[in-house]
Amino acid sequence: MFQSFTETASPDQGPPRLAALRARMAEAGLDGFIVPRADAHQGEYVAPRDDRLAWLTGFTGSAGWCVALADRAGVFVDGRYRVQIKRQVADVFEPVAWPETSLGDWISSALPKGVIGFDPWLLSVEQKRGLEAKLEQVALRACENLVDAIWADQPDPPLGKVIVQPPELAGEAHGDKIARLAAGLGKARAAILTLPDSIAWLLNIRGSDIPRNPVAHGFAILHEDARVTLFMDDRKLVDVTDHLGPRVTVRPPDEFLSAVAALDGAALIDPATCPVAVAEAIAGDIVEAPDPCLLPKACKNATELDGARSAQLRDAAAMVRFLAWLDAQPAGSLTEIDVVRRLEAERTASNALRDISFETIAGAGAHGAIVHYRVTEATDAPVADGQLLLVDSGGQYVDGTTDITRTVAIGDPGAEECAAFTRVLKGMIAVSRLRFPKGLAGRDIDPFARHALWEAGLDYDHGTGHGVGSYLSVHEGPARIARAGTVALEPGMILSNEPGFYREGAFGIRIENLIAVERAPALPGQTVSEMYRFETLTWVPIDTRLVVPALLTQAERDWLNDYHAAVLDRVGPLVDDPERDWLSLACRPI
Amino acid sequence: MFQSFTETASPDQGPPRLAALRARMAEAGLDGFIVPRADAHQGEYVAPRDDRLAWLTGFTGSAGWCVALADRAGVFVDGRYRVQIKRQVADVFEPVAWPETSLGDWISSALPKGVIGFDPWLLSVEQKRGLEAKLEQVALRACENLVDAIWADQPDPPLGKVIVQPPELAGEAHGDKIARLAAGLGKARAAILTLPDSIAWLLNIRGSDIPRNPVAHGFAILHEDARVTLFMDDRKLVDVTDHLGPRVTVRPPDEFLSAVAALDGAALIDPATCPVAVAEAIAGDIVEAPDPCLLPKACKNATELDGARSAQLRDAAAMVRFLAWLDAQPAGSLTEIDVVRRLEAERTASNALRDISFETIAGAGAHGAIVHYRVTEATDAPVADGQLLLVDSGGQYVDGTTDITRTVAIGDPGAEECAAFTRVLKGMIAVSRLRFPKGLAGRDIDPFARHALWEAGLDYDHGTGHGVGSYLSVHEGPARIARAGTVALEPGMILSNEPGFYREGAFGIRIENLIAVERAPALPGQTVSEMYRFETLTWVPIDTRLVVPALLTQAERDWLNDYHAAVLDRVGPLVDDPERDWLSLACRPI
Repeated sequence: MFQSFTETASPDQGPPRLAALRARMAEAGLDGFIVPRADAHQGEYVAPRDDRLAWLTGFTGSAGWCVALADRAGVFVDGRYRVQIKRQVADVFEPVAWPETSLGDWISSALPKGVIGFDPWLLSVEQKRGLEAKLEQVALRACENLVDAIWADQPDPPLGKVIVQPPELAGEAHGDKIARLAAGLGKARAAILTLPDSIAWLLNIRGSDIPRNPVAHGFAILHEDARVTLFMDDRKLVDVTDHLGPRVTVRPPDEFLSAVAALDGAALIDPATCPVAVAEAIAGDIVEAPDPCLLPKACKNATELDGARSAQLRDAAAMVRFLAWLDAQPAGSLTEIDVVRRLEAERTASNALRDISFETIAGAGAHGAIVHYRVTEATDAPVADGQLLLVDSGGQYVDGTTDITRTVAIGDPGAEECAAFTRVLKGMIAVSRLRFPKGLAGRDIDPFARHALWEAGLDYDHGTGHGVGSYLSVHEGPARIARAGTVALEPGMILSNEPGFYREGAFGIRIENLIAVERAPALPGQTVSEMYRFETLTWVPIDTRLVVPALLTQAERDWLNDYHAAVLDRVGPLVDDPERDWLSLACRPI
Repeated sequence: MFQSFTETASPDQGPPRLAALRARMAEAGLDGFIVPRADAHQGEYVAPRDDRLAWLTGFTGSAGWCVALADRAGVFVDGRYRVQIKRQVADVFEPVAWPETSLGDWISSALPKGVIGFDPWLLSVEQKRGLEAKLEQVALRACENLVDAIWADQPDPPLGKVIVQPPELAGEAHGDKIARLAAGLGKARAAILTLPDSIAWLLNIRGSDIPRNPVAHGFAILHEDARVTLFMDDRKLVDVTDHLGPRVTVRPPDEFLSAVAALDGAALIDPATCPVAVAEAIAGDIVEAPDPCLLPKACKNATELDGARSAQLRDAAAMVRFLAWLDAQPAGSLTEIDVVRRLEAERTASNALRDISFETIAGAGAHGAIVHYRVTEATDAPVADGQLLLVDSGGQYVDGTTDITRTVAIGDPGAEECAAFTRVLKGMIAVSRLRFPKGLAGRDIDPFARHALWEAGLDYDHGTGHGVGSYLSVHEGPARIARAGTVALEPGMILSNEPGFYREGAFGIRIENLIAVERAPALPGQTVSEMYRFETLTWVPIDTRLVVPALLTQAERDWLNDYHAAVLDRVGPLVDDPERDWLSLACRPI
């Protein structure tokens, strides 16, 4: 079982640890110290050794910051964690609503004047700039990590095995990727790569250093002559030495900064993610640009898209078995943890599951309205008659990463739930059916997912979709379907399409398919030079018991019936009776 | 008659004038000189004395630039003028596709090294910055205007009379506006106003210095103590002296720069429009921010909205009489100029028309596909059987500015025209029907206007809507419905809603109503704290002979039929037979 249901933090340890940190601050002549959740790779998941924020404060969310001052300590958490943090931290820590209140604004008001320390590996160039822009009388000073200094039993860095992502799954030899990217470096003579999924994609390797994301911690330099220097502990690389080949030189991680300092000519860094420590080690000119792997990694090639289709069907069969089982249980007989266990078991049964792609969200009733609810033993609740159950989950398979949300009726939910479900579905269908000109970004698509909700005065407070990796991170840049999504959509990008609606204290609805951008064949008389559309990748029934047919247009109803016919056609052969009977019923036209 | 059909430029004069300019450049030690179309007020219309670009080059478009170098002279024009310019300029001038090619890029490639002169009154702070960012070996030098120096019979500045915009039309006393804006100056102790429509709005005056926009040229300083210094020739102000009152001090225009230099404390300028000459005269600190009049001017008060509704009905009656007349003429019996004359005559017949709000666009057949087509004696064409006729026009009335486009069938246009017309209409209806959360900008609305066209591989290459003034500029910032529209929509903003489609060489379609943002009453169960919607202001039939009913949803058809019922109800009483009979037919439900 990948998922756990315990809360690992120790809130009672917070006060003595904070006191120890403050003692170190005083010794170092600092008025404060910044503890980010992120590690040097700015990932969503961190290794135990990098889980400094949880160790210090007790807060276990996947994003956040602590700023410890001599007399106050703010813990900055976003809207997902406003409730959770109250349970997790002792009262020596003040929860701060972030990003509404920025670190800089809070520091400015809490500390009139002084010096704040930070670990230059854990702050990106842009994060530091943003902070400095807000601070007038407070200086930032790079220093050793004071949490590490007081963390006696801090775990060692992970040494997870690295494996090859073979050409039949990656679709492009890593030598070709390296050559292609090296040729596009422009004025830079080398690019510095600090994101593990960029390195994994570029070198066609996958790792096991952290949960959920199959990457290995390390750094790399891509040189203009189409060579790569990989800074990674070679104990992790025993199975890939032959694969890496002559273009790739492996060096110990502790040689990374000196190699950066020795670079001849301009070096490319991505200021959004490059640690300050790395940027400051560069002796020559700096070219600031997005990590050159981001866009090509996001645009999946034909092999990766084929892999995604296979992984989605495998995952769909597990989802169908799970949904059929769920429907057969008497209302009230299950708790949320039972649901998570069963779903993971169905995915595991394929013998192909490498990991879940994130902690399954299973929220019944009011828990469904907590957008990123993760059930624990403390919060586990029965799934009761008349409730909606929201299940957002995914699997990591070698051929693709999945992410799917279905909201299902337990017994007979009310009319308000059904009307809202139908409006969410209309938004999800609107995006699925869209044809749009090349050049549009996700922010141009996002309003279509909300239109039907707006008509009833409703909306949801999250983006409509995120990029998804190819056996990599389930949250992958640079494109998103969201108001902040400014990157143009390109063929091959896999995105989620997941509008929702949340009635606080009552119920939550989200319906999510993965979709891939593809070129749309030209229509007669077309004047736009190139149009795109979305290919649907996810094939799992949508609960038609929650659909109000009168709220659908004929085109929407046609889409839904066509979708269900395709689900039955594609997934029916992958499941046995009685699941196939259940599927036939679930896929009936409305 | 306001509109003229002659081309006023003298292309044959271009070569000797360019030669004279080059002689002046050489005397001044300059390698080039920049001649913008814009005047010191960055307006769309300029006084004859400021029409330097047309005088020098022959090009009469409403936007553009000339950069004269010793051996080359580029004339920068946008997509609207690519065809027109070929007729208008001699071959000593090279047309340059702008903004695809920026002035800076063209200069960099045409002039390896040197000094280029510019008139600091005619370049805004942002324009100069944008130019300098592109230039490496070329310096910019502010100097006297070399075109003025060679323009022997350059007209004098205009001395159009200024009139009062009385409280019953403006809705807020100018003293109150001044006090309100002065209180919001923040760190600045004064705001420098260089836009004539900002000054007209703030002081509740209207002018007659330029065609189409009822403004007076001048500058103003808004002081934090709620006083205004107005720099304007007092010969224009004889009718408003009492109105201006004690808060407003009038000074001669030539004292403006010394008054700016004498300001005590930080001065606010809008870098997008403030001339370099003004910014450089400031001795103290500069606060860069949008012109403080822009947003309050855009958000019309209840009185201005009432005025807009009245003006629209008056204008609708003229449009209905015009459309009824047009329908009664045998196909092929009219030319485009006949159409423009008749429409202006119908508007003039109200005895309330102060001006047209822009040159009427009347394009038959292929001329309709030229988005900003202005008919001249040289281009005038018959309106033939089977064509679409696109008519985009508006009036300036003391209570409001109108802007309307209707595309009408002449005889029996083809199926392609009807299908495209219906898709354009669907987009126009989608925007009209929209409900959306507070906080959205025009770019979030724009995709809805295009969706139905995208479904057929079609689109249009202009924004969906622009702000409209209250007896002021027909193109008014800061909000727009367009991909570049980043300003949040606010109640009271009047915008155009004008999707289109253009088949080059064949036909053009545009359907335009004005709409105003208003608060939408809360719906039962609404979760969004505030929703907005649009009030329709324009009430003129849409040609249902061009509608393919099968392409409309029931909701769209209902909207169209409700709209036509309202048109008949509101405008029917304002016209006599036989126009009322025509209107009844035109408003029949489909």
